Amino acid sequence: MSYYSPSIEKLIESFAKLPSIGSKTAARLAFHMLNASEQETQDFINSILNAKKNLKYCSKCFNISDTDPCPICGNEKRNHKSICVVEDVRDIIAMERTHEYKGVYHVLHGSISPMNGIGPEDIKIKELLNRLAGEEKIEEVIIATNPRVEGEATAMYLSKLIKPFGIKVTRIAHGVPVGGDIEYADEITLTKALEGRREI
Amino acid sequence: MSYYSPSIEKLIESFAKLPSIGSKTAARLAFHMLNASEQETQDFINSILNAKKNLKYCSKCFNISDTDPCPICGNEKRNHKSICVVEDVRDIIAMERTHEYKGVYHVLHGSISPMNGIGPEDIKIKELLNRLAGEEKIEEVIIATNPRVEGEATAMYLSKLIKPFGIKVTRIAHGVPVGGDIEYADEITLTKALEGRREI
Repeated sequence: MSYYSPSIEKLIESFAKLPSIGSKTAARLAFHMLNASEQETQDFINSILNAKKNLKYCSKCFNISDTDPCPICGNEKRNHKSICVVEDVRDIIAMERTHEYKGVYHVLHGSISPMNGIGPEDIKIKELLNRLAGEEKIEEVIIATNPRVEGEATAMYLSKLIKPFGIKVTRIAHGVPVGGDIEYADEITLTKALEGRREI
Repeated sequence: MSYYSPSIEKLIESFAKLPSIGSKTAARLAFHMLNASEQETQDFINSILNAKKNLKYCSKCFNISDTDPCPICGNEKRNHKSICVVEDVRDIIAMERTHEYKGVYHVLHGSISPMNGIGPEDIKIKELLNRLAGEEKIEEVIIATNPRVEGEATAMYLSKLIKPFGIKVTRIAHGVPVGGDIEYADEITLTKALEGRREI
């Protein structure tokens, strides 16, 4: 049973549909929205509508961007001979924050997951192979899919497909996170960290 | 420095302005919104616009409602001789969930807080006194403001104003929350719990 008026109830439900928003937070957000000024509300709605209208996929790397090609693909200063393959657009941001990677990207928009019915044809693998087969001379493909079962499977699958092109395929290192506690590291991570040990 | 396209950046900022939404959650919500269908997006926006358009304050108790008077004030079966005074609309919902209170409400929309420059004239105290002085024969005013300094001060202030009307004024009990741990209860709560002890 609901104690709210129908319009509030509907608004709370709308917020509760968003990921990671529970019913209490949804109610707080709904009341915030009710107390917001006309201008604030309009700004909020416009930001959603503009984003939906303006954003498109980069036809090269499938990043989401206001422009096509995206600012990264369109940047002449970047190393277009290195492609970093990620699962999600947000992974690009994570990589960019390192300020270490100067190449370009390819967003798969998912990973191979037979459990969820996602096969190789459902993600942007064909498009990656087309890029590799195209005129660009790619030297290295860095596979930065998530260190989970699906990400590993996708990495293995891609590696087998890309090697025949004569292109170097690498995988980002697994190990103990910086600032982490070895005591709390799981066995698999620690095993990977040991395997990947380097002389200092 | 931002790594996102302007439209995404703007959308993330919009979500990050909402209360209790940090930058990571804002990014997650923004991408959720980008991936939502036209219909879902329109439903979300409509729920905001409809709520802003339809909702008004109940002219009696200042609850937020699609109707005036609100469903509680308009319900003949409720006891209109008992008024429960709360700080916020959401406090009504909390009280209603108990299924114990059958009277009506009065929402102050805040509490007296000199620190924040909120005086008695800034909240709906005058409106409450008008109700008490009006034709309705009120028998009891239950003050359910928050058990904080501001809520207590407001309760004391209201009590002094209402008593001359010859109306019974009560305050909800303070004590150890059910399911709580006495070990972790603060001294003030425990003192209040002791003061309010009852024979069993």
